[in-house]
This record gives sequence, structure tokens and C-alpha cells, in this order.
Amino acid sequence: MNNILIIGAGRSAGACINYVLGQAEQKGWFVTVADADPQLAESRVKGRPNGRPAWLDVNKVNDRRELIGRADVVVSLLPAHLHLEVAHDCIKLKKHLITASYVSQELYRLGDEARDRELIFMGEMGLDPGIDHMSAMRHINSIKAKGGKITAFRSYTGGLIAPESDDNPWHYKFTWNPRNVVLAGQGTAQYLENGKYKYIPYNRLFKDYRKIEIPGMGEYEAYANRDSLLYRDVYGLADIPNILRGTIRHSGFCEAWHALVKIGLTDGSYPILESRDISYHEFMEGYLNPVNASGSVKDRIAALLNVPSDGEVMKKLDWLGLFRKKKIGLDNATPALILEQLLLDKWKLKARDRDMIIMQHEFEYELEGRQQELTSTLVMKGKDAQDTAMAKLVGLPLGIFVKLVMEGRIKSKGVNIPVIPEVYEPVLEELESYGVVFEDHERAL
Amino acid sequence: MNNILIIGAGRSAGACINYVLGQAEQKGWFVTVADADPQLAESRVKGRPNGRPAWLDVNKVNDRRELIGRADVVVSLLPAHLHLEVAHDCIKLKKHLITASYVSQELYRLGDEARDRELIFMGEMGLDPGIDHMSAMRHINSIKAKGGKITAFRSYTGGLIAPESDDNPWHYKFTWNPRNVVLAGQGTAQYLENGKYKYIPYNRLFKDYRKIEIPGMGEYEAYANRDSLLYRDVYGLADIPNILRGTIRHSGFCEAWHALVKIGLTDGSYPILESRDISYHEFMEGYLNPVNASGSVKDRIAALLNVPSDGEVMKKLDWLGLFRKKKIGLDNATPALILEQLLLDKWKLKARDRDMIIMQHEFEYELEGRQQELTSTLVMKGKDAQDTAMAKLVGLPLGIFVKLVMEGRIKSKGVNIPVIPEVYEPVLEELESYGVVFEDHERAL
Repeated sequence: MNNILIIGAGRSAGACINYVLGQAEQKGWFVTVADADPQLAESRVKGRPNGRPAWLDVNKVNDRRELIGRADVVVSLLPAHLHLEVAHDCIKLKKHLITASYVSQELYRLGDEARDRELIFMGEMGLDPGIDHMSAMRHINSIKAKGGKITAFRSYTGGLIAPESDDNPWHYKFTWNPRNVVLAGQGTAQYLENGKYKYIPYNRLFKDYRKIEIPGMGEYEAYANRDSLLYRDVYGLADIPNILRGTIRHSGFCEAWHALVKIGLTDGSYPILESRDISYHEFMEGYLNPVNASGSVKDRIAALLNVPSDGEVMKKLDWLGLFRKKKIGLDNATPALILEQLLLDKWKLKARDRDMIIMQHEFEYELEGRQQELTSTLVMKGKDAQDTAMAKLVGLPLGIFVKLVMEGRIKSKGVNIPVIPEVYEPVLEELESYGVVFEDHERAL
Repeated sequence: MNNILIIGAGRSAGACINYVLGQAEQKGWFVTVADADPQLAESRVKGRPNGRPAWLDVNKVNDRRELIGRADVVVSLLPAHLHLEVAHDCIKLKKHLITASYVSQELYRLGDEARDRELIFMGEMGLDPGIDHMSAMRHINSIKAKGGKITAFRSYTGGLIAPESDDNPWHYKFTWNPRNVVLAGQGTAQYLENGKYKYIPYNRLFKDYRKIEIPGMGEYEAYANRDSLLYRDVYGLADIPNILRGTIRHSGFCEAWHALVKIGLTDGSYPILESRDISYHEFMEGYLNPVNASGSVKDRIAALLNVPSDGEVMKKLDWLGLFRKKKIGLDNATPALILEQLLLDKWKLKARDRDMIIMQHEFEYELEGRQQELTSTLVMKGKDAQDTAMAKLVGLPLGIFVKLVMEGRIKSKGVNIPVIPEVYEPVLEELESYGVVFEDHERAL
């Protein structure tokens, strides 16, 4: 095994490519970085001797297969819906495949074929999903190993802005896919509490957030992810009575985001008519009707939201420019797209801004008749807008896992996610040398 | 032309079949009533000499084509998604087609073919859509004819329970498809006000209802329909600055329905886990989380809704049985299905109950420098649970239009809805003899 192919050189690829190129120089491997934008691929390779940029339109089947055919391990950093095509090629051409995306049902169905060909297809090998699985499983297996019975598992992750770079009233900037941030939470969140199924519909998701304490950082907010129940089986916690996964935000974020949801601004299902020619002010006015009290558009929106006109929520909305008489300038845009474009500008990282990842797992378990609580927390900051904690924590696990596969240290075959000790132990261990260190606090309940 | 085929003998078919059979006896026509349930078809025909029941599984193409082949005019009372197959047969076999459903884009695309074959395909020929189009167009064309300029058009329809049969706290019973009532309004309502586009997302639709005055009946509530803007073109009101279509409910209904929406009970997109074995009480508890205040499930739901525990909204929810410890008993049911099943029992018409249709159009127009308002109102009650105003007002326009086509009095060809004078004039005129009389009130503004 000598050749690695990384497909996709976009925002999330830098840390992964750097790590793999570094390893390649030591081990004598060759790394091809392929992207639809050849200059982007070249800028990632930076002329390093063991790297080669390649120009790939991933929809051109023959070009794609030729590149894949020459590799031993393929890393797909493409948008998630494109992985399946690559996976089919990898089956056909007998190549290992690694991605940071959620494993789809379709991809899982390739498991038998991959296993038959002695291939590993590893998905969810980034941060969330990725490091969350690995760091949770390490504790789950360790509590079980000492005879503990886990009665509650709550796990929270947030891609945030570091306090020293926090200079806007939302206390948030984009460090990841803006569209996903705007559409986050649509559907109904499901989790378990005291053995009962719990449901939070989208219209209350950002209202019914909970407060969580991050040791050394203070109080944050967390809203429930859509899919907590899935993780009972994935994590070997089939009978656990309490399980919740959530997303961390700075205090005050959720109430203001709830306001955007309530107005209707996160809806991506219909276009605003004549959206090019109306102003943000008119756009907001469109959500007011005779039932709403009279007054300025801003006052009427405040009344619709049932919040004070001069309070924190309206301050945040106002800061976004939602009441400005500036034209939207987007053709046939949905409310969600109009909001996304506005946020792209307002929530953009400045060159020297540092982002911050917080991940916290909370376990409650019984051991020898005692109730224990274990909290395991990762707080990691980026260097600047280029070298973000987000890119590092997505890219490093991918890169480390590429190395493990290249070195023949992974025995598992088929479609997997990193919940298996032979994967998470070496990956977490090496991540520690990059400063990815969880701090654990344990106490009797 | 001698033969009529009516496909579908369900809830909405009775009045249409009766009317057509009556006409057939006078005119010497023959009427075939086809249904998947042969006994239902037979019960509709009731042994009348010019009628014949037929057993038809509409998915059996050959059987369907054989019946259609023998008819001159086909009435499809099938669920809306099945009309298209029938329409293709009608094109092929050169038959006229009449339905009471909204005309889909796919059906509109058959317009040229129908016109080439000199066929009329008439859709939206029931109550709403149907009588609403016809009664609105009569006034629109008459105001235009006298030189008036219409500046506002608002149109409301409700299928309600007559006051004398109103014996539940919701003041509502089902007279039409229960599933459509439960899912009504999902999406975003769009309308025009003072020349501005207005949007009401589903999460506020039943909160931002408006009050309307029905002459002789008092005050009702109306929530906006999803699609008011479409009707500008359909009704020849391209530049109108105010247009709104809405659904009428009894006072107090909308606030309580808003509560069901807010809790999450109208969501048909995911199953409640173990829904067979949990009680309604547990189902409601599933929507509560630690953020909601402590107390009984009912008190906590009231707190979530921000309504008094002993107020009108909670009285309505309680009456539905949502807090009973009775098992739901439905496998893998969505919240919407659980709600529908509960309502089916609670909102069922009793044998002697009378339903009531209210339809009201409100026009504002300028004529010779004066501002005028015209209100045109239909209130019609049914006889009992079998002979409903709903069935009559859906079935009679269909039947009357069948007669007009059989008599060769319709010159229009292609795919149409009843906004054309040669259709609405004779239909409305004959409807009057069945008591379908609009009362008009005109005043200067």
C-alpha cells in the first residue's frame, strides 16, 4: 500500500491533507489531492514532494475511476450525497474508503460486499460525528468494564467562537456549513428521559433548550438533536433510560434563534415573491398581519414574538439588519436563503478570529450500589480563521485513520463507524498529542 | 349521447348520483355507478330503472377502460391522485370527464389533447373548489361589466355544524375528509394586502386568524388558506392589491387548534414509538420536558401553551380525552393519526345532526369615484347525517354539469374549471332551485 487519494479540497480538507502529507513524507507514500478546482487542490498540496494535485469533476465517471483505481485508500471529503458513487467505485476497484459524513442506509447496504472484498469503509470519522463517538465509547466501555451500569448519557457538542473573538450580540460566527446551521433542527427531536420517549417539535426546539455547565467555561445552552434514540444501539446502551444528544450555543442564542423560527425565517420550502426588489424591512413586514398590533414594523415583530421591543432578542434581530431598508437582491429566494445570505456576512470569521469547539459527555452510572456522575469535557480553540479548531478536529481523525489503514493496523472490515476499540483507542491517543484532551470530573451523586 | 359513468360511490357521491339518476329517468339516459365495493354501488343505485351498479377495481386497467369505453361522460369521484389515469383513458377513448378535485398540473397538461378531440375535462366542480369559483366569478364579472374596479376580494368557506346540532365545546364535527382537517394549513399561507405579499407560517396560522361577521349568523373565525395568490390569475384579478381566501370556523376553534399544533399533535411525519401500548396521558407527557413547569401533565401542557389550566383551550383538549389513561392502541402511529382517530370518535355526526355550509365573498370596488363594498353570503344546512349540506353542495354542481354536457349546452373544450359564464350561469341558476341562494349586501364605504 503506497497511494492515498483525497477527493475534495474545500473548507474542511486542510487539516486532513496536511496531516496525511506529513505522514507521507515520513513513510514514502504518495498523496493525490483531487478537486473540481485545480488551483484549490494545488494550494492544498503546496508543492510538497509526496503530493500531487489533480483536477477532477467527480461526475465524470471515467476520470473518477481512473484516479480511484490508482489509490489504495480513498478519503471522500465530497458533499455527503456524493459518497455513494465513490463507494460503488471502491467496491468495484477494491479500495478502502474513509469519510467524515453520516453513514447513509444505502452505504450501510454495501457492508457485505465490502467485507467480502476485505475492505474497510469507515464513515463518521470527523468531529461530530467522529470524535463524539470515540470519546463516548471509550468511557462507556470503561464504565462497563469495571461493572458499572449506565443510567444516563447526555452528550453535547458546539462549534462556537472563542470568548476573545466574540464581538457580536449573538456570540456566534460560522465555522461550518452555514446552510446546515440555518436549517438545523427541522423535524422533531426525540430522546429518552426516565425511560419515557420525549418529543420536541421544531416550533419549540429553541425555546425548550436546557442550560448546561461547562467546567471552567460557565453556563451554555443546548438544544436537542433530532436523533438521540439511534445512539442507544450504536453505543451498546440498548436499555438506558436517559439519552440525549444536543448542540451547544452561547447563552442567549436559542431564545433569539427561536424568534427567527417563529417569524418563519428558517423555512426553505417556498420562495418569497419578488425577493430581488424588496427590502429586508418589507420582507419582515410580510410576516405581519392585521392581527399583530400597530406601530413600526420592528415593534409589531416584537409584539408577534411577545418580547420587549428594546430587549435582547430584538437587539439581535436588529443587529442582523432585518429591519433595514436595504434591498435583498436575491432572485426567488426562500426565507432560509435570505437569512443565510444575511448571516454569511454578519457571522463571518475575521482573519484573526479564533473558533472554539466544546464537547461534553455526561454519564450517570451505578457502581457497587453507588450513583456516580462522570463529566468529560473537551474545549479546544483554533489559531485563526484559516486554522480553525473545527477543521483540525474534523481533519485529524480522518488523517490518523488513513495512517492506521495504510499501516495495516485495522483488522475490521465492512462498513463501520468509529465505535470499535481498535479504531478509537489509537486515534484518541494520537489526538492527545495534538492537544485534543478531554478533562474528566467524577463525583458521587 | 346516452351513457354516463360515475366512478366512486363513497361519502361525497350520494347527492350527485341521485341527481343524475333523476335526470336520467326524465331523459332516457343510462347511468353506471362503479365502485370497488359493489354493495355500496348497489345501495346508491337503489334499483332505479336507469341505473346499473358495477364492480370496479380502478387499478385494473382493462376493466376500467371497458367501463369508460361504454360511457359518453365520465364523473370521477375517486381520490384526487387517481384522476390522472382516468383522464388518460378519457383522452384515448374520447370521453368527457368531470371531477370535484383541484386540477393538478399534470391534468392541465392534457388540455391540448382534450381540445383536439373536442372533449371537455371539467375539474373543481364541487363546493370548494366549485361553487366558490362560480359565485365569485358571477360577481367579479358583473362588477367589471358595470365599470367597477375591484380593489379587494376576500372569500371564506367553512363546512360546519348547524347551531341546533352543536353540542360539543369545539363547536365542530367532521362533515368531510378527517385527515385533511387534521393536516390543514401545513406550509405557509400566502396572500396580498394593500399590494404587499403576506406570509403566515403554519406555526402561527391558527393564532393569527381573523374575525368575520356573517350576516344573520354573527361572528366567526377564519384562518388563511395556503394559496390565495393563485386566484388572481384564475379570477382575472391580476393587479388586485388585496386577495385572501380562508376557512371558516366557529369562535374559539382556532385558538384551541393552535394549541394542538403547538404541542405537535398535527405532525404526520414521524411515528410515536410504542404507540400501541402507551396511553393518551403518556403521549402528552412525551411533549413535556424539564423546561416545562412542574405539576400534573395537564397543568404542564397548559404552562407550555401559556393558557390557564381551567380555561377554554384546556377544556377543549380535556374533552378530547388527551389526558385520559386509556391506551392509544394504534401501531406506529404518527401524532396526526393518533389525533385523527381520537377526533373521528369525538367529532362524529350523530344520525340526526345537521351540518351547515357557510360561504362568504367580500368585494371592495371603486365605481364612478365611490368606494363600494359587496358581501355575498350562502348559509345552507343539511337534513341529517346522511343528507348533508356538504354532500349536496359538492354533488349537485357535478350533476348539473353532467346534464349540461349531455344536453350539448357546453361549447368550451379542453381542461377547465368553472370560471366561465357558459358554465357558472346555468349551474348557479339551477342550484337556486335547490335552495343554494346567496344573500347580497351592498354598502358605500
